[in-house]
Amino acid sequence: MKCKVCKDTAAVALRSHNSAFCAKCFKAFFRREVERGIHAQGLLEPDDRILVALSGGKDSLALMLELSLMGYDVTGLHVDLDIPRSSAAARGHVERFCARHGLRLIVKELKAEGLSIPLVKDALNRPVCSACGKIKRHFFNRIAMEGGFTAVATGHNLDDEAARLFSNTLRWDVGYLSDQGPRLEGENGFVRKIKPLWRLTEFETANYAFLMGIENHYAPCPYSPGATFSTLKGLLQKLEAAMPGRKLDFYQGFLKRGRSAFAREQAGSAEVLHPCTECGYPTSSGDRVCGVCRIRRVVREKV
Amino acid sequence: MKCKVCKDTAAVALRSHNSAFCAKCFKAFFRREVERGIHAQGLLEPDDRILVALSGGKDSLALMLELSLMGYDVTGLHVDLDIPRSSAAARGHVERFCARHGLRLIVKELKAEGLSIPLVKDALNRPVCSACGKIKRHFFNRIAMEGGFTAVATGHNLDDEAARLFSNTLRWDVGYLSDQGPRLEGENGFVRKIKPLWRLTEFETANYAFLMGIENHYAPCPYSPGATFSTLKGLLQKLEAAMPGRKLDFYQGFLKRGRSAFAREQAGSAEVLHPCTECGYPTSSGDRVCGVCRIRRVVREKV
Repeated sequence: MKCKVCKDTAAVALRSHNSAFCAKCFKAFFRREVERGIHAQGLLEPDDRILVALSGGKDSLALMLELSLMGYDVTGLHVDLDIPRSSAAARGHVERFCARHGLRLIVKELKAEGLSIPLVKDALNRPVCSACGKIKRHFFNRIAMEGGFTAVATGHNLDDEAARLFSNTLRWDVGYLSDQGPRLEGENGFVRKIKPLWRLTEFETANYAFLMGIENHYAPCPYSPGATFSTLKGLLQKLEAAMPGRKLDFYQGFLKRGRSAFAREQAGSAEVLHPCTECGYPTSSGDRVCGVCRIRRVVREKV
Repeated sequence: MKCKVCKDTAAVALRSHNSAFCAKCFKAFFRREVERGIHAQGLLEPDDRILVALSGGKDSLALMLELSLMGYDVTGLHVDLDIPRSSAAARGHVERFCARHGLRLIVKELKAEGLSIPLVKDALNRPVCSACGKIKRHFFNRIAMEGGFTAVATGHNLDDEAARLFSNTLRWDVGYLSDQGPRLEGENGFVRKIKPLWRLTEFETANYAFLMGIENHYAPCPYSPGATFSTLKGLLQKLEAAMPGRKLDFYQGFLKRGRSAFAREQAGSAEVLHPCTECGYPTSSGDRVCGVCRIRRVVREKV
């Protein structure tokens, strides 16, 4: 197969775009799709100061590298979850990646916060995934606010976003459907959150990471089998195989035509936010203690 | 496996309901689900005069039989499409079924209307399926209006409805999403349309038809491979296998929470209807000739 652009031997075939590219032209394609994703949804301005959440996986590292190459002002943030073996390996990948590319990195250790994930897991009577997500999002936002960053960027790709949309749609969860998207406005103590890779599939990001020589952490979290999400991603893969391009259409159609219907339905039902009496960051909780500070309390009592 | 109700040997296992039933209790389950579907969506009143569209397939015959056993006033309507071999076989099944159960039947022959489907197929420069559907719906409505029927019932089951909803959702077709459902109001020259089997899967209807000794037409239409719909039904089957009950949740959640959002989005954009200048039935077409009369013209010109 030949590259659609330069007719050199192709390195990557993309059925959804009915295309194939050599390594150089694929990188240009990747850049173009990130740019289109940024501009179509107004994710970034040239003077934004971006904090990029780096898990150590291919998506977040690919995002960090591409944004830096595009000339954006980026700083990495890695939250060290303190999970035996897994966390040290992930952190090592992030640190070596940032050192190699000369990129700024902030590391937040949950252990020092009394929020080591194994302790949280033992203290809670439910799966740790949602608590872990809540804690990470809290520190993404808090560190961005404290550091004067104007946006937090995460490496969610089209497969992640389409699977989440599929999940929200299957449950017709009007609250989540009203504001899912690659841009979540910054307001009331929250920094803007963006997902610049929303147009790119997992396959495309993996190819980019490979071609750019990114060494990434790829072991799944030992605490999270992620079964439901995998099922939905698998179904969307089958849909895409039968009808190439349908995955992006589904997500993009939602942004263009679907979301506004749910946003209107939700209008007026916005939660009232107050500062948490312990950490000062916004919470909708009636007792004015945010979810993360409540988890911290539970851990403190059990240890 | 044993029947969940009477502990007799089970004849049908239903994973989505986490149940198994003997033949007798399965028929009672089927009745209950039809009743729940009718009452939850206000499909029928006891004094309704129902015209049941009978294709000859298991779903429509099962619907006709069950509604008659429930004591509703039902009359069958079969539209003979005049497709070689296929149509005669389907009509035969419908006629024998109605004769056997002593049920009233109206047969509408498209040939006599100048709308024989093979002629329509030859006259059009596009797949015949949508034209065929339009013609059938036209006669369902017209014969119901002329005969003083108060509702037209079709045999669409949960798999049909969920696949259609999935298709509409994948495209975020707000117009279709705003009024999909088991009840379409009768107004402005349209009789109410209802789908009493919306809570029952294809598997459940097939079991009912088998247990009731219904002999049905099961050859697919020779003109319609139905590839897209089959793909979507297959994906929903896989979803159901991984998460039993999710298919009904998806459709029911849409009726409860999703549809209203789209209906509000569509409010005010209702089409203006006029009587067709040829047949008198309502049309939104600017030249005031309905789709069916236009097809009739094209066929007349080409033959």
